[in-house]
This record gives sequence, structure tokens and C-alpha cells, in this order.
Amino acid sequence: MKEKNEERLAKQIQFLLEADKEKNIGRQTYIADGSRKENDAEHAWHLALMAFLLSEHANEQVDVLRVMQMVIIHDLVEIDAGDTYAYDEAGNATKRAREVKAADRIFGLLPEDQGKWFRDLWEEFEAAETKEAKFAHTLDKTQPILLNDITGGKAWVEHQVEKTQILKRNAATAEGSKAIWEYCAALIDQNVEKGTVRR
Amino acid sequence: MKEKNEERLAKQIQFLLEADKEKNIGRQTYIADGSRKENDAEHAWHLALMAFLLSEHANEQVDVLRVMQMVIIHDLVEIDAGDTYAYDEAGNATKRAREVKAADRIFGLLPEDQGKWFRDLWEEFEAAETKEAKFAHTLDKTQPILLNDITGGKAWVEHQVEKTQILKRNAATAEGSKAIWEYCAALIDQNVEKGTVRR
Repeated sequence: MKEKNEERLAKQIQFLLEADKEKNIGRQTYIADGSRKENDAEHAWHLALMAFLLSEHANEQVDVLRVMQMVIIHDLVEIDAGDTYAYDEAGNATKRAREVKAADRIFGLLPEDQGKWFRDLWEEFEAAETKEAKFAHTLDKTQPILLNDITGGKAWVEHQVEKTQILKRNAATAEGSKAIWEYCAALIDQNVEKGTVRR
Repeated sequence: MKEKNEERLAKQIQFLLEADKEKNIGRQTYIADGSRKENDAEHAWHLALMAFLLSEHANEQVDVLRVMQMVIIHDLVEIDAGDTYAYDEAGNATKRAREVKAADRIFGLLPEDQGKWFRDLWEEFEAAETKEAKFAHTLDKTQPILLNDITGGKAWVEHQVEKTQILKRNAATAEGSKAIWEYCAALIDQNVEKGTVRR
């Protein structure tokens, strides 16, 4: 039994050090002071904080632990597949296939039972059907809106984003939390008024 | 009731955007590829992943949600107090006073009930008495050992760290997980052999 535990721990630590690469996966969103863009690890930390800070605003009562676990691992596949910008249509067409291949390799580093558990957790997030996955998606979609707004719409201006693109991308965001979505929808309208989001 | 929720959400989002500053608080530990040092947000994300990845190795069964919440917020006080390097004796002498003042301000941004909850969570971590806090400390102390080892002892060499300093700092690390500590203790000995940790 002791030997088995040591073998499991060695595999888990190999996975943990592989996961470290997320710190080098850049996103398009600027951090709140506008000084630089954030990376996937920072983004996931911010979402995990939102998960329990804002859980009272979820449409349905959620299992906060499950939401936190989901957001902590939701971008690990980008270690191989890269970050696909929200409004990159060509990239988004091949995203699923690239990410599934990445999931096979990365979760495959873990002890078999745990690899399956992580894979199921990631697939639950991807499917966005459970209330926990819906709330996790709400956090994932609204965190960049909050950062975009506080930085004067910096990434929106850079990419000349239109309001219709943001609304299309956020078609399901209210499914996790009507309250958080409404807060962000108002920010988007303010940015349209200021000219930082195109009409 | 609706108005109250909106007021709470506005305060929570103000807190969330203040917390964003953690992405700019540098640590002394290098990320796994050795290319740069990590920041507090990346570190906290890595610990949150460890919390559920490695919970089976905790000495006692822990409430994984509580451990994750603790590690996600444990360094927020460094937004005001700064990161105090493990082996900076002068800095560590004033650390508690600086961090308490920071906790008053930062958790004070939240709705009162939630601010108290966050403050209690942080104090629980600081006291390191509950099994959850002990396990969180084990993660907080061993994550940099894993990163130091994988980068060839880079930060240890830079700071000419001695084995006795590491052992003193880790006097209580086995209290959260004997298995994880033993794994890391072996890595420290290997680094002494290689000359990257001073005897």
C-alpha cells in the first residue's frame, strides 16, 4: 500500500509540474491596472475566488467545491492547444479537436482513476449542462468583461470588438447567474456609449 | 431585497478587482521552466490545484473546499504588505503587523458578514491549527520546493540557502502531510548532494 501511494504521488507531482506551463499561456485580457495581459493561471485563480465570493448570486444553489475544481482545471488543455481568442473564428473551428487531444495527454499523466475523474470534470465544464458548469461558464465569461471595463475597454479597442459579438458569445451567460450577467451587460452598454465597444 | 443584492454585488466586484493586484506581487520562486519568477496569483492557483490533486495524502481527511478557499485567499494581504521572502529575517519580524493592517483594509471592502467570513478564513490559515490549515501550509511550503528542485535549485542558489534554514522553515510541514513532506525532504537531500542547497 505504501509503495502504491508513493507511485501515485510521483505521478501527481509530474502532472502538477506539467500544469505549471499554464503560467506561460497568455490571454488577450489585460490585468486591472492595464500594464500587461494576464495568463491562464492568473485567470483561473481569479475565477476560483469568484466561485465562492459570488456563489450567492448563482441562479440555483451550486456545489461550490465542484465549481472551484472546474475553474482551476478548465484551461489546462491550453498547455497543448493554446488559448483561442474569443473572436477568432478560424481558431474556434478547430478548438474542440485540439483540446480533446490535449486532454488525453495531460490527464493521462495522472493515476488512471484520478485521470478519469479530472477528464470527467473537464468534460462537465465543456458541456455546460449542470448548474455548476453553467455557473463556472458565467464566471469565465464575465471576468474578462470586468477587466476590460476597468482598463477602459483596452482589449476590446485593440480587437475592435462589436457589441453583437460580445452578446453572441454571452448568449448563455445568464444561465449561471442572471444577477452577474445583468451587472456586466450594463458595463457593456456603458462601453458602447464611451466608444470602447463598437455598436 | 433586490437592491440589497445589487449593493452586495457591487462591493464584491470592487473587492475582486482589488484582489487582481495579486497578479503583480512577485515571489522568489521560479516557474518550472526557470524563465521567470512566479507571482502570488499563479502560486495560489497552483496550491488550489494541489489541494484536491493531493488531498488523499493529507494526514487526516480534510474539507477540500475549505483548503481551496484558504489557499486562494492566503496571500491577499500581500497586496499591501508585500511578499516577505522565507529567509528574510528582518522582514519576517514585522510581517504579522503589516499583514493584519492589510487584512483590515482589504477584507473591509466586502459586505460586513462576508468580510468577517474571509477574515476568519485567513486567520484560520495563519494560526495553522485546524487540519485544513495544516494541510494548506504543507502545500504552501512544498510547492516552492518542487519548483526549486525542477529548476535546478535556481532560487536556492541565488539566495545561498542552507539545508538547516529549509528544515527550520519546514518544521511543521509534515503535520499536514507526512507523505508529501517526505517526498520533498528527499528532494532537498538530492539538492544538497548536487550542491544547489548548502550543507
